Amino acid sequence: MEYPTESIKNVVESFSKLPGIGKKTALRLTLYLIQRASHEVDSLANALLALHKNTFRCKNCNNLSDREICNICSDNSRDNGIICVVEEIGDLLAIEKTNTFKGRYHVLGGRISPLEGVGPNQLSINKLLERILNENVQEVILALSTTQEGDTTAFYLSKEILSVNPNILISHIAKGIPSGASLEYTDELTLSRSLIYRSQYSVISPSKT
Amino acid sequence: MEYPTESIKNVVESFSKLPGIGKKTALRLTLYLIQRASHEVDSLANALLALHKNTFRCKNCNNLSDREICNICSDNSRDNGIICVVEEIGDLLAIEKTNTFKGRYHVLGGRISPLEGVGPNQLSINKLLERILNENVQEVILALSTTQEGDTTAFYLSKEILSVNPNILISHIAKGIPSGASLEYTDELTLSRSLIYRSQYSVISPSKT
Repeated sequence: MEYPTESIKNVVESFSKLPGIGKKTALRLTLYLIQRASHEVDSLANALLALHKNTFRCKNCNNLSDREICNICSDNSRDNGIICVVEEIGDLLAIEKTNTFKGRYHVLGGRISPLEGVGPNQLSINKLLERILNENVQEVILALSTTQEGDTTAFYLSKEILSVNPNILISHIAKGIPSGASLEYTDELTLSRSLIYRSQYSVISPSKT
Repeated sequence: MEYPTESIKNVVESFSKLPGIGKKTALRLTLYLIQRASHEVDSLANALLALHKNTFRCKNCNNLSDREICNICSDNSRDNGIICVVEEIGDLLAIEKTNTFKGRYHVLGGRISPLEGVGPNQLSINKLLERILNENVQEVILALSTTQEGDTTAFYLSKEILSVNPNILISHIAKGIPSGASLEYTDELTLSRSLIYRSQYSVISPSKT
């Protein structure tokens, strides 16, 4: 397609490299930005320029941070005894949003996926084992995706963790029926897992971690 | 929601000002950009910085251009005798993509909408009338949206155009059943319009303008 100007073409092509944004949406966004005041567009551009410059990986847990050690690792009010292992930063942010967990995290940076060529060495596993050895960790919660790759990663991790500390408690987040779902439309695997991992019924709601 | 760093927050907030992009999508895009090489992010930022600097409105037809007069107005192979009036640049680009029209355009910059406070004075109507007076225009095609506001704008424009040149041909783009649609699921207004604006059946396909 021919664009009215070279600079419009450049913005459309840059936008359409983003996930979930096709050429049509990219053009719509670009035409929208042309109609906005130029300082608004500049502020988006400047925010993007600062993004890589001011964002680092936490040396401890691999979370994103503007310093060497992230906000969560340097927060003394959080529990050092529990590490919640997640695949990506987005998972960490999703758990933080629930306000349910007050321990520390460890971001693997992905999951074991032979199809995508991701093996254990590409993930931040050694650092996790080092933390388990050096910090006083009593429990590791595996909060991985409930896919075959997530399960493979969980199996590999649990073996490695137990080889470093055989007395540690390893748990995984509950697999079951999501809130608001009806049993009739729930897939068989989820339903069968929700029966296997059933909990004792209690009128008192479970305490927060 | 708390973001890991200030610069992540800035990018998320800038992205979520764009149409159709909520906080969740903005965060997903930002986390994606953090994982890309920094020069890729910089090239998006630089494209955005250049956008307003190198984009002007064509002095003749109000199209976007990197010069005073746009590519279409300065293309001598195009027909000076037909002006296709559209609301927005996006409409012009959509028509150009069809490769069906070889005349000139005029971009109004919107449509008459009392609810949104847009009257005839906010649109590029005087410039259009000036062009009809000074250029040798035989036909004006109204390619406006098929909404009540589009119809109002078409009615207003046709009166104004005829007051300037009573002998000009004013046409509008065909209103009817879109390609690939089934009659059963077409709304009543479209169906009734498609009957009113029916054309003579011909085995030869209509010639291109």
